Amino acid sequence: MSTVTTRDVSDLIHSDLEEMDARIAETVDIGIPQVNELVRGVITSGGKRLRPSILLLIGHAFQPDHRALIDAAAGIELLHTASLVHDDDIDHSALRRGRPTLSTQVSSVTAILIGDYLFAQSAILAAATNDIRVVAVFAATLADLCKGQIREMLESHDLDQSFDQYEQRIYGKTGSLFAGSAEMGAILGGADPGTIAELRAYGRDLGIAFQIIDDVIDLREQTRSIGKPAGHDLREGTVTLPIMRYLAGLPANSPDRALLVDITSGDVTDDRVIDAVVGRIRASGALEAAATTARKYVETAKGHLFVIPDSRTRHALSQIADLVLDRSA
Amino acid sequence: MSTVTTRDVSDLIHSDLEEMDARIAETVDIGIPQVNELVRGVITSGGKRLRPSILLLIGHAFQPDHRALIDAAAGIELLHTASLVHDDDIDHSALRRGRPTLSTQVSSVTAILIGDYLFAQSAILAAATNDIRVVAVFAATLADLCKGQIREMLESHDLDQSFDQYEQRIYGKTGSLFAGSAEMGAILGGADPGTIAELRAYGRDLGIAFQIIDDVIDLREQTRSIGKPAGHDLREGTVTLPIMRYLAGLPANSPDRALLVDITSGDVTDDRVIDAVVGRIRASGALEAAATTARKYVETAKGHLFVIPDSRTRHALSQIADLVLDRSA
Repeated sequence: MSTVTTRDVSDLIHSDLEEMDARIAETVDIGIPQVNELVRGVITSGGKRLRPSILLLIGHAFQPDHRALIDAAAGIELLHTASLVHDDDIDHSALRRGRPTLSTQVSSVTAILIGDYLFAQSAILAAATNDIRVVAVFAATLADLCKGQIREMLESHDLDQSFDQYEQRIYGKTGSLFAGSAEMGAILGGADPGTIAELRAYGRDLGIAFQIIDDVIDLREQTRSIGKPAGHDLREGTVTLPIMRYLAGLPANSPDRALLVDITSGDVTDDRVIDAVVGRIRASGALEAAATTARKYVETAKGHLFVIPDSRTRHALSQIADLVLDRSA
Repeated sequence: MSTVTTRDVSDLIHSDLEEMDARIAETVDIGIPQVNELVRGVITSGGKRLRPSILLLIGHAFQPDHRALIDAAAGIELLHTASLVHDDDIDHSALRRGRPTLSTQVSSVTAILIGDYLFAQSAILAAATNDIRVVAVFAATLADLCKGQIREMLESHDLDQSFDQYEQRIYGKTGSLFAGSAEMGAILGGADPGTIAELRAYGRDLGIAFQIIDDVIDLREQTRSIGKPAGHDLREGTVTLPIMRYLAGLPANSPDRALLVDITSGDVTDDRVIDAVVGRIRASGALEAAATTARKYVETAKGHLFVIPDSRTRHALSQIADLVLDRSA
């Protein structure tokens, strides 16, 4: 079930990921057959398991309690899954990873309740680590995640936003979970406070790069490969880095700027018009400019890895950082 | 802000409840003014603070760490509030405690996100107690709460359900939070395992009684006093104890039984027809029969209090149990 990323990563944590999958399956069993089936559909829908992989690799670089490490990895993967269930319901996404989302299979009410249930189970796994610091990181991560989502809803439609605002929002939405995963791994490994902080920064920067690439892919690829229409963010009026880079290259009184205002404010929703704008964004070099920013975050992320004593683990974490840049979807 | 229940309870924990309110207000500040205003509206809407009162009283019966006790009480109250926000969205309730719910003021999406944010903050407060056992109870309580809600959605429309099924459902929906509150108070007070188990049972039985009385009030009272139409459960097709007691008194081939089948399955939705059935349920003695069951749970709950060494606290917890029976709404 677990998706292996590279050979080096796989060699180190393949069996841990399998153990984690088993732990998740055992934890989410609610004892109601029709709900179990829905939940199983969500948790086996084939994510890349990047977040738990980071947690496990970092933990293994030190001296972890094996059982607690698996519990924390399972907890973070389930927290991620729970947030996807609520996001899809909020987004009304029909597809995720090319498969129908829970929201299209059940009522919105059921999706809310199942998301809440998965949040609860992820909290149970965090508590099972028996480490109050891990629980504190877990709770803070969930709070940052929610804040990021609330900011996205309220602030993402503003074309005049600064890069800092964008960064703050995507830290919440995506960086927080990567940062929390890295931090939990370091805590459970028994790393010292300075090392924990460096590794949290690795996760944070990597998560921000991940989201920027996500925002690039959203404009670059078609429905089939990512499970969403191209330009989905634009259709929702969400201003992402590639859109900001495209905008920065337009003259102040350009009609394309005015059109972008109309699209992000919801005044223009015609698919053909939006498809044309997506084409112009692609042609403008804005996707490459945004990808360059992501590359810088990945380089900064790798820079934090010097605190990892074991060279094999350090190398695997560096490979994971490269994968974030290279993924096609 | 805090609602005082009885003089004896108030004398013991009035200042704790004020401290708790301040802790909640400080914790939920999200730094986004328009969201802060919505959140403040939710947390100040005047609940009875029964759950944190139980936690605080039980904690005080032993030797608690004061700061941790306030954090746990704030955490449990916020968890309760978060679950109400999602419930109201699921229920499409227009009123709660006679005031408009968040769901009527903002989009369903915003209500989901604010509920999630409050869950996150309640988890932060649980972690702030610095006691992993409290966090474990917190997470298990949240899981039981979600299971109760899922069971309500899936199983509550069945007229042939057993009392055990009903009890299991309302334990999840309501009893779990009361049980968790009592258990956290006992843990933080430093009680021994046997005492903790007795006090958890006090909370559980009291919570079940609370929900039975809630189900009675739903059929007994008008919109003005409870903030919902009378017979709201019946309109939603939810089978509660008074409805089960009414049904038990009907002959097998009674047309009233057939009508009840049609109402709970959603085939009959005419308000006048349902009003008439509500009238017949009231006249049948079913409300009194259900209240008698609630009274038995309250008596059992009080029976667990013998483990409380301090007579003043024991008396106050006994008074809280009586209040659960006597509340008009």
